[in-house]
Amino acid sequence: MMRFERVAVIGVGLIGGSFALGLKAAGLCGHVAGIGRGAANLQLAKGRGIIDSIAADVADADLVMVATPVAQYPQVLAAVAARLKPSAIVTDAGSTKRDVVAAARAAFGARSSQFVPAHPIAGAEKSGAAAASAELFRGKRVVLAPLQENSPESVAAVEAAWTACGARVSRMSAEEHDAVFAAVSHLPHLLAYALVHEFAGRGNSAQLFGYAAGGFRDFTRIASSHPEMWRDICVANRAPLLAELDRYAEKLKTLRPLLERGDGAALQLLFTEARTARERWLHGEYE
Amino acid sequence: MMRFERVAVIGVGLIGGSFALGLKAAGLCGHVAGIGRGAANLQLAKGRGIIDSIAADVADADLVMVATPVAQYPQVLAAVAARLKPSAIVTDAGSTKRDVVAAARAAFGARSSQFVPAHPIAGAEKSGAAAASAELFRGKRVVLAPLQENSPESVAAVEAAWTACGARVSRMSAEEHDAVFAAVSHLPHLLAYALVHEFAGRGNSAQLFGYAAGGFRDFTRIASSHPEMWRDICVANRAPLLAELDRYAEKLKTLRPLLERGDGAALQLLFTEARTARERWLHGEYE
Repeated sequence: MMRFERVAVIGVGLIGGSFALGLKAAGLCGHVAGIGRGAANLQLAKGRGIIDSIAADVADADLVMVATPVAQYPQVLAAVAARLKPSAIVTDAGSTKRDVVAAARAAFGARSSQFVPAHPIAGAEKSGAAAASAELFRGKRVVLAPLQENSPESVAAVEAAWTACGARVSRMSAEEHDAVFAAVSHLPHLLAYALVHEFAGRGNSAQLFGYAAGGFRDFTRIASSHPEMWRDICVANRAPLLAELDRYAEKLKTLRPLLERGDGAALQLLFTEARTARERWLHGEYE
Repeated sequence: MMRFERVAVIGVGLIGGSFALGLKAAGLCGHVAGIGRGAANLQLAKGRGIIDSIAADVADADLVMVATPVAQYPQVLAAVAARLKPSAIVTDAGSTKRDVVAAARAAFGARSSQFVPAHPIAGAEKSGAAAASAELFRGKRVVLAPLQENSPESVAAVEAAWTACGARVSRMSAEEHDAVFAAVSHLPHLLAYALVHEFAGRGNSAQLFGYAAGGFRDFTRIASSHPEMWRDICVANRAPLLAELDRYAEKLKTLRPLLERGDGAALQLLFTEARTARERWLHGEYE
């Protein structure tokens, strides 16, 4: 089994911290150094045994996990590139991949083969090192979006790290990744934010929220997500997200006349097909 | 305290059964008769003590609860009207109210003052008498949409029944009710069904569902609702729902250029305002 003697985690929050704990639990790493801007969070991470030391750079590291907000990547990756060992592998946990690849190519230049882009699909209800858990990624999906210039060994090493955390790893291109997540993740967030914002701006908003119940609560749960994180995702992934938004607006346009003419049969068919697809999904047919 | 000597529940499912159990637990009723098409469900309800007898009509009843699907109201209310005591009160639990009022006026004619429309806002994850509980309505809202011709005593009696079940009762017109619920309930259902249906119809639907995660699951939970029930609600309430659908489509149109030009500040403001409104709602500011 491969092993990373020295791991550096930049941004020891829920994702970075859980990655470190997962590697440790699997015995896949030696020393873990934590790098970040929040001194209190790093101390907490050290106290919880998530990291073994607090470091200022990645000079020692064999494996570097970048788990900061994607908006910080340009400066974070530049700092990494300045100190990185030629044999080291860098990976990340960002929610978008084309912009990450562009930032990595800009930062690493001819050494971009050292960077293996990745995206763990794990919730973010809580945040910070306090919420990190070795079990966070168990059974969850992780998408690798390898660069053409990555060596097979580098990609395999990152895959092994995630597999050790219990994740189910698959691969696709950065373009395909961003298109898929624009649809199944970014669009629903935008739609939920839009609905809550629409009602909040009405003259009778207190009455509307007063009668909103469980269905509304679940539909809009993701509208309680971090505005800065979702701003960054929407801006970074705006081309595929715009395409999805337009397709959804078209969908609503095709649905409108069914409603207008009270076409119960057509509505029932649409609802039934949607429910059937969702039930299949819930029962794991697309795992 | 008022008391209903003989109650008849038509449709002894989750809602009708829980209403009966709530009244019984509060000591507000004597005998409860169950009326319905499903013999097995009625036997189950009798076995669980939800109803005391199975009846064929409402001739004996002082209070009649109509808790069938709204689409059945025309025939159900006609049957009720044919046998109803002049002193009895009829109420219902339908999710739409203008169509219910129209059906009641058609069925009861000059005796429509005996019908007090109501809508309990309670979930329907499970169904049938097996899922009924005396606690279902505790802390939940119930909207009464009284008719002009209802006597204050009849409305107060229905209010007392729901209060005994632990519900928080408020009143509004049928028109106002239907407009509010088109926004906070019917529209989100339509949007969720539309999103799942859109992805289910794509060539890469297996891939899309394969990467859908917790956010998508919650956003689309209501797309697992009963297609027939939501067909009926959408058709019955189509005018207010169309108006809400159009306003939402407009909202997406105003959001689109922010995304197109990558206006992170405007997106962040919108997301922050939405999240703030939602958090206020979650913290009970609109109760």
